[in-house]
Amino acid sequence: MYTKLWLDYVTDDNGCIVSFDGDLSDNKLIDNAVNELRSCNCLKDLNIVLGFTDDSSLGDEGYRISTSVMGYKIEAYKDTGLIYGAFRFISLYRLSEDKTISVTEVPVNKLRMLNHWDNMDGSIERGYSGNSFFFVNNDLVINERTKDYARILCSLGYNGVVINNVNVKGEACNLINEKFIYKVKELEELFYSYGVKLYLCLNYAAPIEDPDVGSADPLDEKVIKWWEDKFDYIYSIIPRLGGFLVKADSEGRPGPFTYGRTQAEGANLLARAIAPHHGIIIWRCFVYNCQQDWRDLKTDRACAAYDYFHDLDGQFDDNVILQIKNGPMDFQIREPVTPLFGKMPKTNQMIEFQIAQEYTGQQRHVCYLIPWFKEVLGFETYAENAGKNGSKVVDVVSGKTFGYKYSGMCAVTNTGNDENWTGHDLAAANLYGFGRLSFDPSLSSEEIANEWIGLTYGNDEKVRENILKILMMSWPAYEKYSAPLGIGWMVCPAEHYGPDPDGYEYSRWGTYHKATHDTVGLERNSTGTGYSMQYNEPNASMYENVDTTPDELLLFFHKVPYDHVLKSGKTVIQHIYDTHFEGAEDVETMARLWDELNGMIDHNAFKRVFERFEHQLWHSKEWRDVINSYFYRKTLIEDEKGRELY
Amino acid sequence: MYTKLWLDYVTDDNGCIVSFDGDLSDNKLIDNAVNELRSCNCLKDLNIVLGFTDDSSLGDEGYRISTSVMGYKIEAYKDTGLIYGAFRFISLYRLSEDKTISVTEVPVNKLRMLNHWDNMDGSIERGYSGNSFFFVNNDLVINERTKDYARILCSLGYNGVVINNVNVKGEACNLINEKFIYKVKELEELFYSYGVKLYLCLNYAAPIEDPDVGSADPLDEKVIKWWEDKFDYIYSIIPRLGGFLVKADSEGRPGPFTYGRTQAEGANLLARAIAPHHGIIIWRCFVYNCQQDWRDLKTDRACAAYDYFHDLDGQFDDNVILQIKNGPMDFQIREPVTPLFGKMPKTNQMIEFQIAQEYTGQQRHVCYLIPWFKEVLGFETYAENAGKNGSKVVDVVSGKTFGYKYSGMCAVTNTGNDENWTGHDLAAANLYGFGRLSFDPSLSSEEIANEWIGLTYGNDEKVRENILKILMMSWPAYEKYSAPLGIGWMVCPAEHYGPDPDGYEYSRWGTYHKATHDTVGLERNSTGTGYSMQYNEPNASMYENVDTTPDELLLFFHKVPYDHVLKSGKTVIQHIYDTHFEGAEDVETMARLWDELNGMIDHNAFKRVFERFEHQLWHSKEWRDVINSYFYRKTLIEDEKGRELY
Repeated sequence: MYTKLWLDYVTDDNGCIVSFDGDLSDNKLIDNAVNELRSCNCLKDLNIVLGFTDDSSLGDEGYRISTSVMGYKIEAYKDTGLIYGAFRFISLYRLSEDKTISVTEVPVNKLRMLNHWDNMDGSIERGYSGNSFFFVNNDLVINERTKDYARILCSLGYNGVVINNVNVKGEACNLINEKFIYKVKELEELFYSYGVKLYLCLNYAAPIEDPDVGSADPLDEKVIKWWEDKFDYIYSIIPRLGGFLVKADSEGRPGPFTYGRTQAEGANLLARAIAPHHGIIIWRCFVYNCQQDWRDLKTDRACAAYDYFHDLDGQFDDNVILQIKNGPMDFQIREPVTPLFGKMPKTNQMIEFQIAQEYTGQQRHVCYLIPWFKEVLGFETYAENAGKNGSKVVDVVSGKTFGYKYSGMCAVTNTGNDENWTGHDLAAANLYGFGRLSFDPSLSSEEIANEWIGLTYGNDEKVRENILKILMMSWPAYEKYSAPLGIGWMVCPAEHYGPDPDGYEYSRWGTYHKATHDTVGLERNSTGTGYSMQYNEPNASMYENVDTTPDELLLFFHKVPYDHVLKSGKTVIQHIYDTHFEGAEDVETMARLWDELNGMIDHNAFKRVFERFEHQLWHSKEWRDVINSYFYRKTLIEDEKGRELY
Repeated sequence: MYTKLWLDYVTDDNGCIVSFDGDLSDNKLIDNAVNELRSCNCLKDLNIVLGFTDDSSLGDEGYRISTSVMGYKIEAYKDTGLIYGAFRFISLYRLSEDKTISVTEVPVNKLRMLNHWDNMDGSIERGYSGNSFFFVNNDLVINERTKDYARILCSLGYNGVVINNVNVKGEACNLINEKFIYKVKELEELFYSYGVKLYLCLNYAAPIEDPDVGSADPLDEKVIKWWEDKFDYIYSIIPRLGGFLVKADSEGRPGPFTYGRTQAEGANLLARAIAPHHGIIIWRCFVYNCQQDWRDLKTDRACAAYDYFHDLDGQFDDNVILQIKNGPMDFQIREPVTPLFGKMPKTNQMIEFQIAQEYTGQQRHVCYLIPWFKEVLGFETYAENAGKNGSKVVDVVSGKTFGYKYSGMCAVTNTGNDENWTGHDLAAANLYGFGRLSFDPSLSSEEIANEWIGLTYGNDEKVRENILKILMMSWPAYEKYSAPLGIGWMVCPAEHYGPDPDGYEYSRWGTYHKATHDTVGLERNSTGTGYSMQYNEPNASMYENVDTTPDELLLFFHKVPYDHVLKSGKTVIQHIYDTHFEGAEDVETMARLWDELNGMIDHNAFKRVFERFEHQLWHSKEWRDVINSYFYRKTLIEDEKGRELY
């Protein structure tokens, strides 16, 4: 048995009376929409009409829901909109007090995707919720849980899912071969029937394995032909496949650099071969030198994505999308926004977040990430010529700023085969939240949280209030007790969990803080690595100067003495001590807020989160003490408040 | 194919004429001795007589070899002595220039053992030479390699081998059950026929699994009966089994503490049950709290073995031997000698070394450990009432000081299924050296090395000279470029390989250096953790005072400022810088000495070591720079010689 999250409302099939105003003619999406409503216990005895409208402003995926004395009406311009509308109606109905529902909703982002880092052997790279539910023992699995997952995605407005790890090795190469392609087709049909497009990751080096080709050079005619044939084959079987996500020239993965070609030449090879089938190529920008010598003070990993991609603007075909991580490093608790956003008007872009809590507590700590994503999306890029289209990150990735053909938001997912899907029950707020946020980025973190709490735990005010407080405190708390002031990476290598202030300091990963007994931080302005100059003005100038750099990113951009005074009026060292004590206290507060719910929610659900808090209470203190001791031993500067340092 | 080390001389069976002066009557040991000589190519046409003598001063294992015009004579008092003598004769003959051999050799230590940490699944805990040759896929393997291993052991005078890991789990529990015991018997017979006794590790908690017992309380009658029955069973099948090695109450292993009993009560339980069969119980003293809070400044892991065992002197039965690691921590490159030696006159003791290079380069760095073991054995314990018996560690563990019934030396072995047995070809010098050293601790490190070089690489003077230099430089070099001045543990946790100065600093393992920007080291004297007081005088006073503590152990015993001046006249910080630069230079020298042998020894053998040096050259510089940077960043004290620090 497993939890169906906010879909747990489905208990039997004696629900409401649903009529469809039109010609069904074997349409799986409409079938599913109707069945979803009919089997929904909470809608019992309601009268609901589904139907098409000729209002094309709703697009493929929008819907309109209205209430009248006759009952409820859900209208859409296309079938995908109808099934989104049906799910949304159920949520709104459950959340509504007066049961009057009147909304018109059209998704803001064209692509709203989840990326699975699931391996064919069933393991999940950076997965913290059990094994894969797509893959077991090098085989593809399709069962009731798969269907529920498709329903979950649809209910939140996700419209794409990449089912396999970007590091495509071994058996995963066969997902596009005869061995597995018919199972992939079956999976595609399932997801399609819930409005979700299926995507795969591919191995860029695949044609090397073919003895008749033996190369992956994007300009080699044989290679071009190989991919044309391959896509012809794939699409002859799965004509609606969304396309492919590619990690090339990164962390040991082969790519166009191997042949002295550009990233654009690599991406276009695939894009041209897939174009006749209307597929897209999503090309990751996570390209950097992962063999850096820590003694090398000039190379800056933060500069890599911009350095490799910026000058290629305009060279990518229009069915290529660059998938760019939110920050220039790798999903740290705090990073600046990647400077590529707002700097490539002629190249489709999608932003990549991570709701798998790789560096943010691995679903053992509660960390509601939506406030962090909101900050990133709200960052002003000052893109040139944006005018009234706006030039915030959200405008860029929703395609408004530059009128991209394809664009959107994706997240590395936090799901797995654990009974509760996300390891930590409260981590489901990120799965829920990211879907809703990518559908409508104007929603506030609190609005999203309140929806999720209501649908998951019911409408009790005290329950809502306490969980909302916990969620909203959680990301700031994690930042407080982990790496300070934007420096990042003070984490155990390999596991990416738990404090290890020097863990990455002498490694090849390009992730250093360079703390000495006098100073800490990296000089990344024009006199340093030059990273700050990758931004548009006035951002470049803001980061150039220590006085105008926001406190929370100070050590990312500047090397400062420990007695440097922050805008808050505190010295750096005292800020470190204070935030670390505060962060651990915040966890005590959150745990107390949860304890107050004992008896007010399902006991097992209470207990699951209670147990995670037991660990977080201990582990946040471990973080507090290790980071504080690290800086105390380095500086021997006492805490102004006289608290114990070790 | 694999290398047979110094036994590679065996090429065919048309060797010498060997006659045995006595009644063979189906004696496997004598058979093997005769065959070994007969099949030895280098002895061709010699005339060799084997025979017994009534000189009981040779004991069970001694022998006398003499030369006359008639040929060579090998005499012994017992068959074990004869086979040791035969192997020794071959070595001496191969090494001798004038071929006149006249020696009488009797082993100094009663027990001369190797401990295998081999698991039944074929893996080896802390093994760096491939998988186990005893175990494959949860089964016991006996083949030609096993026989060669028995020959290797015999040729060096080893007389005992423990074949399975001290952490006895899963299938290994069945080594004393019907499932495997007949295979163990077969193995015992093989080793016995080469003079080597077989020992096993056992799971102290075994009777808990028996539903009729359900306990491991050493005072529980059912438990006592269970072990009596178990040993009756085992010895009815393998009457010559040497006995058992036990790790209890350590690193998660169950033991008598679980039932509020002492270590003596635990050991005696087994000792009394095994006594009727003349077996012995070897009881490890590696007992400590491995769940220490790093913030706890009072608990000192170094004190643990003494604290747990010292007051039990006289309470152990006389067929129990305490197996005590050379130092109080865990096989670091430098530690003081465990203070239990010379402090337990009424309790059999054996010293445990480690030739598996867990913390000393994992057989990727060359590190000839015999000089280090010689230092330990030469340590004066000032044991009371030792008189003319001597009270150095070597006297204690050879049984001289207190007249122990059982005593000796053992080492965790460095062997595995790699073609060359020890991963690094030069690591075979430790396997060879430890056998010879435990047979005769008065041998110098150079004598042992010269023997090994001659037998392995031949008698070329240049080859001998260069390899001797490399071996003798190697341990000091490793100490220079790794953790300084006895502090230890600046190594990556889990792997125990490569520099990580703070790797253990915030862990639960009780292994801290507490470096701040002012000071480094632990106060372990009477005003600190009190560890130094565990020694006899005048050692206790020597370690009490910073001025009388030897430089190489300074930071083990004392917290000092970086500008503290060593006996060498250097400050601590300058010593750190200097030794780290020197250590990496020493590796360059060693690699150059090796390069000079290109063309002078077998090319593949040359290349194997050459490749290991390539790694060591890089990795010793990594050690140098990380350790130096760590202390430089902490202190910002410049190198007096102006070399680059990062």
